[in-house]
This record gives sequence, structure tokens and C-alpha cells, in this order.
Amino acid sequence: MISRVLAADLRRHVGEQVRIAGWLHRRRELKSVTFLIVRDRSGLAQAVWHGPAEPALPEESVIEVTGTVVASAEAPGGAELHDPLVTALSGPAAPPPFDLYRPSLTAGLPTILDGAPTTLRHPVLKAGFEIAAASVAGFRAAMDGLGFTEVHTPKIVPSATESGANVFGLDYFGHPAYLAQSPQFYKQALVGVFERVFEVGPVFRAEPHDTARHLAQYTSLDAEFGFISSYRDVMAILREAIAGMTALAAERAQAAMTLLSVKAPIVPGEIPALHFADAQELIARHTDTDPRGEPDLSPGHERWLGDWALREHGSDFLFVTGYPMAKRPFYTHPDPARPGYSNSFDLIFRGQELVTGGQRLHRHADYLAALAERGEDPRSYAGYLQVFEHGMPPHGGFAIGLERWTARLTGAANVRQVALFPRDLHRLSP
Amino acid sequence: MISRVLAADLRRHVGEQVRIAGWLHRRRELKSVTFLIVRDRSGLAQAVWHGPAEPALPEESVIEVTGTVVASAEAPGGAELHDPLVTALSGPAAPPPFDLYRPSLTAGLPTILDGAPTTLRHPVLKAGFEIAAASVAGFRAAMDGLGFTEVHTPKIVPSATESGANVFGLDYFGHPAYLAQSPQFYKQALVGVFERVFEVGPVFRAEPHDTARHLAQYTSLDAEFGFISSYRDVMAILREAIAGMTALAAERAQAAMTLLSVKAPIVPGEIPALHFADAQELIARHTDTDPRGEPDLSPGHERWLGDWALREHGSDFLFVTGYPMAKRPFYTHPDPARPGYSNSFDLIFRGQELVTGGQRLHRHADYLAALAERGEDPRSYAGYLQVFEHGMPPHGGFAIGLERWTARLTGAANVRQVALFPRDLHRLSP
Repeated sequence: MISRVLAADLRRHVGEQVRIAGWLHRRRELKSVTFLIVRDRSGLAQAVWHGPAEPALPEESVIEVTGTVVASAEAPGGAELHDPLVTALSGPAAPPPFDLYRPSLTAGLPTILDGAPTTLRHPVLKAGFEIAAASVAGFRAAMDGLGFTEVHTPKIVPSATESGANVFGLDYFGHPAYLAQSPQFYKQALVGVFERVFEVGPVFRAEPHDTARHLAQYTSLDAEFGFISSYRDVMAILREAIAGMTALAAERAQAAMTLLSVKAPIVPGEIPALHFADAQELIARHTDTDPRGEPDLSPGHERWLGDWALREHGSDFLFVTGYPMAKRPFYTHPDPARPGYSNSFDLIFRGQELVTGGQRLHRHADYLAALAERGEDPRSYAGYLQVFEHGMPPHGGFAIGLERWTARLTGAANVRQVALFPRDLHRLSP
Repeated sequence: MISRVLAADLRRHVGEQVRIAGWLHRRRELKSVTFLIVRDRSGLAQAVWHGPAEPALPEESVIEVTGTVVASAEAPGGAELHDPLVTALSGPAAPPPFDLYRPSLTAGLPTILDGAPTTLRHPVLKAGFEIAAASVAGFRAAMDGLGFTEVHTPKIVPSATESGANVFGLDYFGHPAYLAQSPQFYKQALVGVFERVFEVGPVFRAEPHDTARHLAQYTSLDAEFGFISSYRDVMAILREAIAGMTALAAERAQAAMTLLSVKAPIVPGEIPALHFADAQELIARHTDTDPRGEPDLSPGHERWLGDWALREHGSDFLFVTGYPMAKRPFYTHPDPARPGYSNSFDLIFRGQELVTGGQRLHRHADYLAALAERGEDPRSYAGYLQVFEHGMPPHGGFAIGLERWTARLTGAANVRQVALFPRDLHRLSP
């Protein structure tokens, strides 16, 4: 059998007899000419002949086409197959619920998500995931280059990580257990082992919020590392991670970026940073709202700050530093110079919180004090606290939400569009 | 402040004043000389001075040492720090429960696992995870090179994937749900989208078996791809994955491989393969057991076959093909030429099953027939079956168990030694 050629490579085979294989993306029958467009993992290829479509397969049927490659300026990729022999590889497909060959799917999001196994085949929907995959590769490349070790930590845990609420419970061989809301405790413990660690994995939040930015399972790009001199070191490493993600998305997912008209963000050598209190001042001065005294930024304020960063610094990214301790978890390192504020930050990407990070406590006594202040029982954290008795360096880290990254990058209005088979309050399938 | 130098780079700074930072691995006080061994992510470095240890910090304390680098044949890495100034970065550590500086930990496995946040710091324990991380990078590099797209699929699913038993149930916003036992259904559906996909992620098995090779959560390296002409194409891609893992383990985790005296396996260009029935014949002929007629291989038989492959083919790997359909899941493609047998395989690595894979059914009608034969209700698989109505190519894939790979490679007797914070029938923490 002639070996298979991918659609994208067709024009390198002009004059040759080749075989392509893929899904019948589109069948067009004109008066005396038939066009078949075949979709494979590399893109689209066209076969043309004089006469009717025979066999008359429905779209999405899986076919093989053997024919002679002829250069053609009108064909996708600049070449097409003539005198093709078409073979069905697995019988005629049931007609798909949507015309996947149209430039976009007009159905509403719930319908698209219900039909995900088929609708994801649409080149525009698929493109977001190609960008996501390239971004994750870029994250790992950056971490590898900085001496981080990749780890895989437990997703079934004996107690809630981030807070008692929003956690999924399960029956673990007759004992109560929970799905990990983050690898926080483990990645900190592993700083004691590897000094620099990262993890790409699922995290679980029993989010009661039905919003466009929350999922019950999402992919978290986590990093944690020791021997920092301040939380600014964490911001510097995060900047490298973001630069790596941007670079590989542009390089590996170039066709997908072009299809979605994505403008790769510019990652400044130093991303502009604004203290939380200064950000609130700025908003109070320039808008008709006054957020001063509030412990967090609203989505509207994040949008305003995103616009400000672009206008004033030409940056798609903005660090907001020093978030109030009141809204940060107990392991957050306070700012010793500024009571009530912390050595932590958020990274805002095009007006939306993308990353949370910062310096953590590293002294055992500080953990005991922090838990006491919140009225929490240190015995609930015994296994975790043990790590800090046996020598932990000043350290910090961050967590990037992959779906938020992809949504912001591609302009998707809802994170569900960039999650494969999303999980939320109302959705457990497909 | 002088910028930090890693232990492994010390000898490149002979004559210079440098700063190192890490954990106090070992303090040795001789009559008039003190040695401090500092452990950082790159290895060990030694500081020496005349006089008593001052400050007299316990081992595992986190310290910074500034001093002059002097070449020394006896020092780890060939250089040491003289006239050092030692600073504690986070106060004295509580003495660790084990002497982490000794060549090996003599405690039993349960004790080691209970103390994992500290015991994992031991260079010998840590080394296995460095090899695992490098292997995963090798897997991804191989997949990337072959045009696979990385995906992240749901771990919370509406029904059991592989069988009704051995599944963890959870309460999903008031609805029953399960932890995914594998990404099988999703990776098959995504063949329809990306043609070639891979995933590195956790899978969950409520294993009632308390053995040295079962875990309740493990890391699965999954791949699935379309347009195969036979299951042999799946074996060929798996061979590339294994070769990639082996190559990067040897390259990136060289020090860890040396520390554990790991001999990198030789991956033949074509891994030897034996049909299941022929494997049983061979065992019957050459041992005093007769497994013919049994639907599976026992661990003892796998060991025997592993030895046979090494002896007869000089290979650490052996494919056993054609496993009986009786023991394979319903989506397995039968061997049309040999009733009762399948187009699936196991890969045995040094005498233990490491990978299961094969060709899957790809026609909708075949799925309906397979489920009917097993007395299963197709309505339980409605979301999954829908994929096969809308055009799926002949396809197949495999799943590599990361912990089994690392255990076999490093000679660990128990997979728990190569899982970070393992989960099993009796263990939910740390």
C-alpha cells in the first residue's frame, strides 16, 4: 500500500500518486464536478473529479483517498488530488448534528457542550485546545530550563486543602476523604525534597458559582520553589513561565493562532506591578467607584486595571501585589513592613485574574501562630506542619489556571469553551 | 549579596568567594576541624574550617554558607568552601527522625512512607523520582515528535469506565459520580478530534488488593491514535515511547541512575513479540506448570517470560499479543482470524506487565454487538457510543503505568517506593 501523506504535506508531492486519510469534512457536487474535502490532524485536503460523488458518503465518514497530486492555487494547501479512488474505512457515518464544515458553529454553548465528542471536531473549537497543549509544553520547557522537577501528587486527600467549603467528599475504603483543591501542601513539602517543583494536573472545586470563569475540575499549572529572597523572585519565575507559554503557543500552534486571529501577548521583560492599596487608590481616583477598604478586587476592577496596564505600560499583564491577609489562605507570608497586607500577588492577564502566588510561611512557629489567629486546630494540619519542623527555606510559588489562560488568549467568553468535557454545577457529562 | 552557586557548580569557581545554600546534610566535628555537608537541588557541597561547629545547628537546618572555593580531591564534587560564614535561614531544625546522611534508610517501608515529607529528602529515595520525571519528559518528547496532541480529560465521570467494581464513588452536587479509572472513553473520542492524543494524569482504582504492584491512584501515560492498519502499528508507537523514556532518563537523570546503579534497558528496534497461546505453550514445555487454557498470565509466568526474552533475544522487553477476549474489556478488537483471541497486547518489562494496549473496536454496530454479548445495557454507554456513529477510524492505544516503569527500572520491590505519598487500601496520608 502507498504510505499515507498528511494534508499539510500534499504540495510537496505534486506529480506523485499518494494516499490521504481522514474525515469527509465536506462534499460538494456541482453540475459535473465533485469536490471532497478531507480533514486530518494536519488540516484540510481536497480531491476533485468529473462526475457524481460515488460512493455518496455522508460528512464525517472516515475515508481514504488515493490519487495524483496536482498543484492548484484554489485548493487548501495549494494542491489537490485528481482521479481519486475513495474508500470508506468504517462505513458511512450518521450525519453529524452540526455542519462542521461551516466557518463557525451557531449553536448555543450548552448544545455545543452536550455534543462535545462531535462538535470539538470543528476546526475553530479544536484550535483552542491546540493552543492550550502548546502552552503547557511551553510552561514545562520554562520550568525544565530553570531546574524544576516535575511531580505527581495525590488527588485524594484526608482533609480539605484550601478551605472547608467547596470540596468534594468521597468514600475511601470506608473512610471519609476529599478531592484535592490544589497540590499546595504537597508542593510545599516537596520543596524540602527537590527545592524546585512543578506539577500539571487536575484540581477540584465544588464551586457553587455558575459563572463563566469557574469549573469544578480544571488544569492547574503549579510551581513552588525555595531559597527566595522575596516574593519578587516568585514573580520573576512566573514571568519566565508566562514567556515560555507564549513563545511555544506562537511556535507550535501557529495555524490555530492564525485561525482564531489570536494576537500573541507581549510579555515585558519586567511585568508592571502595582500594590493592592495603590491599585485601589487608582480606581478610586479615576472611576466613579471607591473600592478602598475592600479586601479584594471585583471582576470589574480587574478589567479596569487590565485596561490601565495596557494604556500606561503597553502590557497585557499586570501584577497586583500585597493582597490583604484577610482574603489570603493561612500559609501566606504577611508583609512585615505593612500590617494587614501580604507578600502575595495576583497576575492579571487582559483584565482577568490568571494566577495567584506569593511567598509562604516557612517557620513552624509562624504556622502555629497563623492557625491560632484564625481559630483553627493545628492538629488538623499535623502531617503538613511536620514538614516545617525539619528545615524549610523561605519559599513561594504560584498556580496558573490553564483554562483561564486559554480563554483570555483566544478571547473565549467562557472557560467551558476551552475545557475538554467541562465539569460544573450542572454538568457531569459527556 | 553574592549570588548563589549550586553545589554541582562549585569546582568551576575555585579561588572565588561564593555563597551556597541548602539543607545541613551532615555535620562532622573532628578534634580540631569541622565539616559541614550542604545538600541542594544539584547535590552535595562541603565546607571546612578549623575549630568547633558554630553555630551548632542540627542536621536538616536550612543554611547559607559564604566562603572561598578551594579544589579538594576528597570533597564531593572536587571542591570545598574554606573560611566559611554560616547563616541559618530559618532557625534550627528539629532533628530528623532518620539520619538522612547515611547511605541508605534502614527503616521499614511503612515507617518510611509515614515520614515521607522528610524521608523523601534522602538522596536514594529522591533519585527514583528524578528518574520518573525524566522518563515522563521522554514520553512527551516522543509523542510530540509523532504528531500527538496533549489533552486533559475529566477525572469525575458519570459512570465507571473499565468495570463496575474497583471504582471510587463521590457525591457530585447531589448526584452520584465516580473517579475515572482511565481516560479510555475520552481518549478514544478525542481520536475523532485530534487523530493522535496523549495524556499524563492520575487514574483511580479502588483496588481491594494489597500487593506490591497496586495503588489506588497512579500516574498513567496514555496514548490513542487513529488510522492504524493493525495493532502492530500501536506496538510500533509504544516502542518509540519506551525508547524516548529510556533515552531521557539516561540523559537528564544521569546522576540518579548512577546513584541507584540502574542499568538503562536496551530497547530493540523491534521488541520481540509472542502470541499469548505460544507463550503458554512455551511455559508448558519448559516449566513444571501448564497454563494452557487459562485466560491470563500469572505474575510468575510473566517473570518466566521476561527471563526467556532476555535469554533468547537479549531484550528487557517482550510483547505478548492476542490476549483472550474473555479477560479484555468490551472495546477490545477481536482477532478476526483467531476466534477467542484479541488484537491486544501487554508489554512485559523485566518480567512484569508494564503496559496494556491494542486495537479498539471502531464501528458502532460492533460496539452494540460486543455489549449485547456481555449482557450490558448500551444505554449506560450512550454518550460514549455516540462517537462511533459519527465516523471513527481504525484506532488503538496503550497506557503505561509510570510507577511500575520506575519500579522496574530502579529495581524497587514495591511501587509504593516510587509513588510520592502513595494511596492504597490502608493509606490515605500523608
